[in-house]
Amino acid sequence: MKKIINEPGNVVPEMVDGLVRAYPQYLRQIPETMAVIRSNEDSMAGKVGIVSGGGSGHEPSHAGFVGPGMLSGAVCGQVFTSPTPDQIYEAIKAADHGKGVFLVFKNYSGDAMNFDMAKDLADVDDIEVKSIVVDDDIAVEDSLYTQGKRGVAGTVFMHKILGAAADQGASLDELEELAQAVLPNIKTIGIALHAATVPEVGKPGFELADDEIEYGVGIHSEPGYKREKIKASKDMAEELVGQLDKSLGLDSSKKYAVMVNGMGATPLMEQYIFSHDLLDLLNAKEISPAFMKVGNYMTSIDMAGLSLTIFELKEDKWLDYLNYKVDTIGW
Amino acid sequence: MKKIINEPGNVVPEMVDGLVRAYPQYLRQIPETMAVIRSNEDSMAGKVGIVSGGGSGHEPSHAGFVGPGMLSGAVCGQVFTSPTPDQIYEAIKAADHGKGVFLVFKNYSGDAMNFDMAKDLADVDDIEVKSIVVDDDIAVEDSLYTQGKRGVAGTVFMHKILGAAADQGASLDELEELAQAVLPNIKTIGIALHAATVPEVGKPGFELADDEIEYGVGIHSEPGYKREKIKASKDMAEELVGQLDKSLGLDSSKKYAVMVNGMGATPLMEQYIFSHDLLDLLNAKEISPAFMKVGNYMTSIDMAGLSLTIFELKEDKWLDYLNYKVDTIGW
Repeated sequence: MKKIINEPGNVVPEMVDGLVRAYPQYLRQIPETMAVIRSNEDSMAGKVGIVSGGGSGHEPSHAGFVGPGMLSGAVCGQVFTSPTPDQIYEAIKAADHGKGVFLVFKNYSGDAMNFDMAKDLADVDDIEVKSIVVDDDIAVEDSLYTQGKRGVAGTVFMHKILGAAADQGASLDELEELAQAVLPNIKTIGIALHAATVPEVGKPGFELADDEIEYGVGIHSEPGYKREKIKASKDMAEELVGQLDKSLGLDSSKKYAVMVNGMGATPLMEQYIFSHDLLDLLNAKEISPAFMKVGNYMTSIDMAGLSLTIFELKEDKWLDYLNYKVDTIGW
Repeated sequence: MKKIINEPGNVVPEMVDGLVRAYPQYLRQIPETMAVIRSNEDSMAGKVGIVSGGGSGHEPSHAGFVGPGMLSGAVCGQVFTSPTPDQIYEAIKAADHGKGVFLVFKNYSGDAMNFDMAKDLADVDDIEVKSIVVDDDIAVEDSLYTQGKRGVAGTVFMHKILGAAADQGASLDELEELAQAVLPNIKTIGIALHAATVPEVGKPGFELADDEIEYGVGIHSEPGYKREKIKASKDMAEELVGQLDKSLGLDSSKKYAVMVNGMGATPLMEQYIFSHDLLDLLNAKEISPAFMKVGNYMTSIDMAGLSLTIFELKEDKWLDYLNYKVDTIGW
């Protein structure tokens, strides 16, 4: 393992410290936690707070999306490990400005348990809390740490949509309704050329031969649905678009937002080439995305690979939310 | 070589195509070239154009910095190869709105020759062109493709400063004066854990053992000044800060902007940990950066490693330029 770190056991506190000190205009660390909250207090006044989080190793998720127009706070667990309920609870308290707090987390057993327990703690304080569990990964049903489908890069679209709505004054009930309406329309599938190495483990989550790739991999190196010899980018794009088409029923009469997400060690060069192939395929179906992002948003430490998210914009307002003004490190 | 590409010879046209089609609100490709120009024509009216570029493989540089408040256009050469004079000339023509064009390029022999030739072509058209050659890398004197010092990540600070000044109406002469004043105050040094693989070459530019790192590496895998066993992040930070201190004379009475730049395959986790160590070292000298950025800005394809840029802000106005409003994909 070759990494720019100190003690493997210290990666999360040192990372959070570096992030917060590098960007004090965006982030403030909640004392004695690995949770961060917006520095711009005024931007949260009179609004529902939006809190996300999960295991670390997905940077810039989730702390990089904290800022006006997006998240109020984020809780950073140990690498690939859910944050603890007490820390989530501290973030809820910091994000509450009298209108309640909406939680966004991904569908992993540990996160579900701990975010729910934090909600119970907040109940005692009479802080109203609602939540959405994102399960956008269509690759497999059930997985190593998941009942049902995994939550992956599509979560970032959920952050953006809810953050914009909250900034415009949506109530907790309205945010819940919005999140539930949006959720089934966000679908993601990934591909790996090389698995991630958790610093405390010291070796990749799985081994791929020099000419192999894995389709449908999770963001914690969970297995996908098939392993094959490496192909051209356009063939990878065809496979991923084909899977998403089965799930979403891609249709030129509908509007879509698209995210090509690098897994951490994938150069932008490759992400743009993949985007070229992807857009060729979509254009052949007479689809031009109404909104598109290409970059590293929900990474898996040093995994080489990418994921493709397609989000059917059933309402024009959703596109407005994606385009709504935002000020974060990572969006 | 395991990459998400099609034909290695097509990476640049496919990458530029993917980038421009993913972000039409920012970029327009100049027909029959690998050069891009701002889509927002209005934002360039009555202002000096700023054009940068160089070999591809450094994404988001340079095209990702095209947008209001930063570059007017960027020219994408073949991988690690200067763009040709005719393409630079096309970008100059597209960026000229009657006030002339300022060129920013890095100190490599190929770039110097071709940007100068493009300037000569523009002279014939009576387009006034001035330029700055960035040579911020303090690691070595002369190098594989360079007389003098190499230009690396500090170039992005130059883009930001000049883009902000141009947007505020600075003349071509004022931009030249500003660029020359700023240049000697931007210093960078890098470190590599793994060299970049150029797609058409198919293997890394140099080989490092599993426990080795190279100090002072260039962004085209040019050699650095020493190779050592891998150390802790804080030791790497100490080495890089020490070198920059020798060059800049770090002093608590001065103001600094800092950039920690990932080389392409370096997770943000590691960049934030390095930032933590870096800030500890600077704070020990009673220095707190007045401005800081951490992320992938001037990459080297899939190189693992990072560079550290320190920019002494001799004038308060320079800090204003760094904070000035900007709308690009990459900043």
